[in-house]
Amino acid sequence: MDVGVIGLGAMGLPVARNLLKGGHRVTVYNRTLGRAEGLAAEGIHVVESPYAAGQGDVLISLLSDDRAVEAVFLNDDQFIPSLAPKTVHVSMATISAAMGARLYEAHSEAGRQYVSAPVFGRPDAAAAAKLFIVAAGDKAAVDQCAPAFESIGQRTFYVGDNPVMANLVKIMGNFMIASTIETFGEAYATLRKYDVEPGAFLEIMTNTLFGGTAHKNYGAIIAEERFSPPGFKMPLGLKDVNLALEAAAAKSVPMPTASLIHDQLTSAMARGYGEMDWAALAQVIAENAGLPKKS
Amino acid sequence: MDVGVIGLGAMGLPVARNLLKGGHRVTVYNRTLGRAEGLAAEGIHVVESPYAAGQGDVLISLLSDDRAVEAVFLNDDQFIPSLAPKTVHVSMATISAAMGARLYEAHSEAGRQYVSAPVFGRPDAAAAAKLFIVAAGDKAAVDQCAPAFESIGQRTFYVGDNPVMANLVKIMGNFMIASTIETFGEAYATLRKYDVEPGAFLEIMTNTLFGGTAHKNYGAIIAEERFSPPGFKMPLGLKDVNLALEAAAAKSVPMPTASLIHDQLTSAMARGYGEMDWAALAQVIAENAGLPKKS
Amino acid sequence: MDVGVIGLGAMGLPVARNLLKGGHRVTVYNRTLGRAEGLAAEGIHVVESPYAAGQGDVLISLLSDDRAVEAVFLNDDQFIPSLAPKTVHVSMATISAAMGARLYEAHSEAGRQYVSAPVFGRPDAAAAAKLFIVAAGDKAAVDQCAPAFESIGQRTFYVGDNPVMANLVKIMGNFMIASTIETFGEAYATLRKYDVEPGAFLEIMTNTLFGGTAHKNYGAIIAEERFSPPGFKMPLGLKDVNLALEAAAAKSVPMPTASLIHDQLTSAMARGYGEMDWAALAQVIAENAGLPKKS
Amino acid sequence: MDVGVIGLGAMGLPVARNLLKGGHRVTVYNRTLGRAEGLAAEGIHVVESPYAAGQGDVLISLLSDDRAVEAVFLNDDQFIPSLAPKTVHVSMATISAAMGARLYEAHSEAGRQYVSAPVFGRPDAAAAAKLFIVAAGDKAAVDQCAPAFESIGQRTFYVGDNPVMANLVKIMGNFMIASTIETFGEAYATLRKYDVEPGAFLEIMTNTLFGGTAHKNYGAIIAEERFSPPGFKMPLGLKDVNLALEAAAAKSVPMPTASLIHDQLTSAMARGYGEMDWAALAQVIAENAGLPKKS
Repeated sequence: MDVGVIGLGAMGLPVARNLLKGGHRVTVYNRTLGRAEGLAAEGIHVVESPYAAGQGDVLISLLSDDRAVEAVFLNDDQFIPSLAPKTVHVSMATISAAMGARLYEAHSEAGRQYVSAPVFGRPDAAAAAKLFIVAAGDKAAVDQCAPAFESIGQRTFYVGDNPVMANLVKIMGNFMIASTIETFGEAYATLRKYDVEPGAFLEIMTNTLFGGTAHKNYGAIIAEERFSPPGFKMPLGLKDVNLALEAAAAKSVPMPTASLIHDQLTSAMARGYGEMDWAALAQVIAENAGLPKKS
Repeated sequence: MDVGVIGLGAMGLPVARNLLKGGHRVTVYNRTLGRAEGLAAEGIHVVESPYAAGQGDVLISLLSDDRAVEAVFLNDDQFIPSLAPKTVHVSMATISAAMGARLYEAHSEAGRQYVSAPVFGRPDAAAAAKLFIVAAGDKAAVDQCAPAFESIGQRTFYVGDNPVMANLVKIMGNFMIASTIETFGEAYATLRKYDVEPGAFLEIMTNTLFGGTAHKNYGAIIAEERFSPPGFKMPLGLKDVNLALEAAAAKSVPMPTASLIHDQLTSAMARGYGEMDWAALAQVIAENAGLPKKS
Repeated sequence: MDVGVIGLGAMGLPVARNLLKGGHRVTVYNRTLGRAEGLAAEGIHVVESPYAAGQGDVLISLLSDDRAVEAVFLNDDQFIPSLAPKTVHVSMATISAAMGARLYEAHSEAGRQYVSAPVFGRPDAAAAAKLFIVAAGDKAAVDQCAPAFESIGQRTFYVGDNPVMANLVKIMGNFMIASTIETFGEAYATLRKYDVEPGAFLEIMTNTLFGGTAHKNYGAIIAEERFSPPGFKMPLGLKDVNLALEAAAAKSVPMPTASLIHDQLTSAMARGYGEMDWAALAQVIAENAGLPKKS
Repeated sequence: MDVGVIGLGAMGLPVARNLLKGGHRVTVYNRTLGRAEGLAAEGIHVVESPYAAGQGDVLISLLSDDRAVEAVFLNDDQFIPSLAPKTVHVSMATISAAMGARLYEAHSEAGRQYVSAPVFGRPDAAAAAKLFIVAAGDKAAVDQCAPAFESIGQRTFYVGDNPVMANLVKIMGNFMIASTIETFGEAYATLRKYDVEPGAFLEIMTNTLFGGTAHKNYGAIIAEERFSPPGFKMPLGLKDVNLALEAAAAKSVPMPTASLIHDQLTSAMARGYGEMDWAALAQVIAENAGLPKKS
């Protein structure tokens, strides 16, 4: 299949390589050419304009946030109409529900095909082609992307007709992680005051009721206070919690836990933890309880 | 081994039977004799005084809360001294840290052996001898209980010397469940407003990041609004969150998520949901967002 | 003095009339001309373009929100430069700190004079020339406005050089009102359960520790459940709390009470109270406690 | 009138003196006799048993908390019956609703007269006979106390038949102060980040919408960071917020602002501010926003 890729960040690069490995003809575009260096030698077609990436069967965009998506797809109002009618544009970015809706509308108005398909998984999962893909949009369009998805992910979940639904699932999934961090933070803080080691509690939790990946990973990061270097930086975490709050506010849904976490992450920023992993939210909780850092 | 059991509630009864099945000599006492009916025919020794249950190798008490524990073990100040010196008293109740500390002190003063060993698992897990046992106390005393624990649980976790530590682990484990309910409630409420089915979101979450038992069970209960009949009643849930808040307050730890859940469960009680499962906390969240009940 | 007025809403109209009454030469512009009807007969100069209003000593804009301010002053990039160099533009709107900063910058770049001067007081206070004016900006520019301020307000407070400071004071003042509503709501709900009349509690509070206007007014509105017709509509209240949260977030300040009130007002919107006074936030609190409406 | 006084703390001592100044015959009892030293020379009758204080027209008890009240009035079950039938016992302590109800019940069972009359006012207001008295109980009994109340307070508010109602008013009044502190703390923190002086904001607030005593006093204490020496110590503030939460919980009322303040005060304790004024809650808020202490 002919697959274009726009955006060669920490996720885009391994995705492009896995598409090639999957037997697809891959055309990539990145705003700064440096990221594409060497890809040509690997057999990937590198182009200097996004227009050239949007003529195949599928165009995957892997941009960082609302602003980057807006810059490429909306600020240049010739771009979406330039996509080939057969091309399905798959946006994999974690963006706001509002931006998701604008993108959908812009494609619909231009008569172009749009699928939203954010992923769960960090760069190492992308490299291992183990991403979880959450797709929403016209069913036929999503089906057309299946060969590409198979090359980069371990499983695709189809959520529904409206592409925005996939954005929502991704946003709420991240909120669930945020809440996991906050919850471990509070539990650990109290346990430490009673001399129960967070690691001991974690072992019990993950071997009984909370055996999922998020609890294993974040539970350990927090128990061991491994906040630097960050896997996912504090400001990105705050951004994602804000996406949840905005999506909820737009539909008059109170999300008090999200509000609370927003406040805690804001305090983390104020305390100068902006370069740490967002799990350092637990550090804020520990400090509020008068607990010292582990040495 | 000679094992006494005090308290034949929904958990105590299957525990007693599994002890018998495990080859132990079992002596049971219950305040109301009716619960013990028929047990003699099964081969269990039924006694009419708690004193008679506390002369074996292990005395397991499975009482419902602080008040019940206080009534049996503390209000009668002759009872603990009446235990045989070799007997290890194992309290499996979910009680407050403060009551746990009082029990520990009372046994120590009387020179008697005390282990705290609350369990994770509902009555069906008790019946299947699949409980998770969280034990704390003198290591030799805990070891002495191993044959009994093996007959009733699938795994024992040893937390530390001070019995109160096990109470804390149990309390914080329940807090983690409460937070799971609240988090699903908030996420589902927003998703429903965007026409994403809670069940679809749940399938994605449990197959990716949140594959543990608590998320599978409670995620489904809430998605399907299966709040009656209750698996664990609202007031018990509120009681457990209060145990977390009290334990935290006693050591000056703020637990804002626990406070928030306390407020939501309080509203559930005010709305008349006291007979429902504590997962109906999610119903409060849905109503606060103006969402109708599923039909 | 020559005073222009842009915006003849519930506040702008009485302000224009009081300026005339104060002996000033008043020129008004409103987007929809209907609002200006009859003013010419009163002696006010009505113009059909905002350009004609910005040539006097002072131009007072009384627009409703960020969007309206942006439409008039920023979207037309010829407008600010068209102001006479001697004219001081006084923005009295309750706008975001971010918009305040953009306005300030746009005036500075064009070499025009800008003062921010939001007011405390409802339309009746505006009609009675009893507004409280909170002014910030270049001191000389603020002084130049004194004759106009004297005609419309009872007192002017000068906050500092940077016009944004006045926006902040207004935003935080409104947050204090919001918190007053929430606080009364919670206290009344508990008191009602103990058969203490909110009105009795209010009388005690306002005669002892809380004798200010906000407590007298809002305490009575809530005690009497006078939520319709609204004095200040729910969505405006929510907007103002959001202004506080945004200003705080921009500087990494957690405002947990504001977050909490945001959630409660959001629930009020979800419950269909969008046409009620924002004090109906107390109705949400009462319902959460299972309390009936007063008949 | 014959008036007994039990409890010669910071409030009891000036109250006793003002009763004497008001022309009453005053009999005082204090657990530690030292506090009564010198009073005999002033003309006050000092007795060595509480029994001797409860034979006049009115017995005013001014004890510090639930525990002190319980010690004197409930632990000795002969004490209440020993009161003269004509004596009205007036409890002025800030106690829990639950303790208030127990006291009421104990007096009723013994056929003795009981009025609850907590006060608003600090020791300096007590010395100046400027207390505000909030009284509840049998109307005739309250009326009987009027001459005593006139000698010590500036105004008495009658709340209702059930003495517990007065406890509730006092508890909720203190909650309103707590909320005022929290609200100022949040507003000041944001304002400081925009270079607006808290003192400037305070002047505007107290001259416009928030002119009451609580705002003037606490607004200034926080703006000036006058947290030591304490006027009202942190743990007492936390105790009072807990009284509000307990009273609310007993009737299934969520009080989210009270919960939030509970968490903040808990953090204040954890940070080591237990010897400071409870207004240092604002210090917690400032620190959470990364703000330095004023020098």
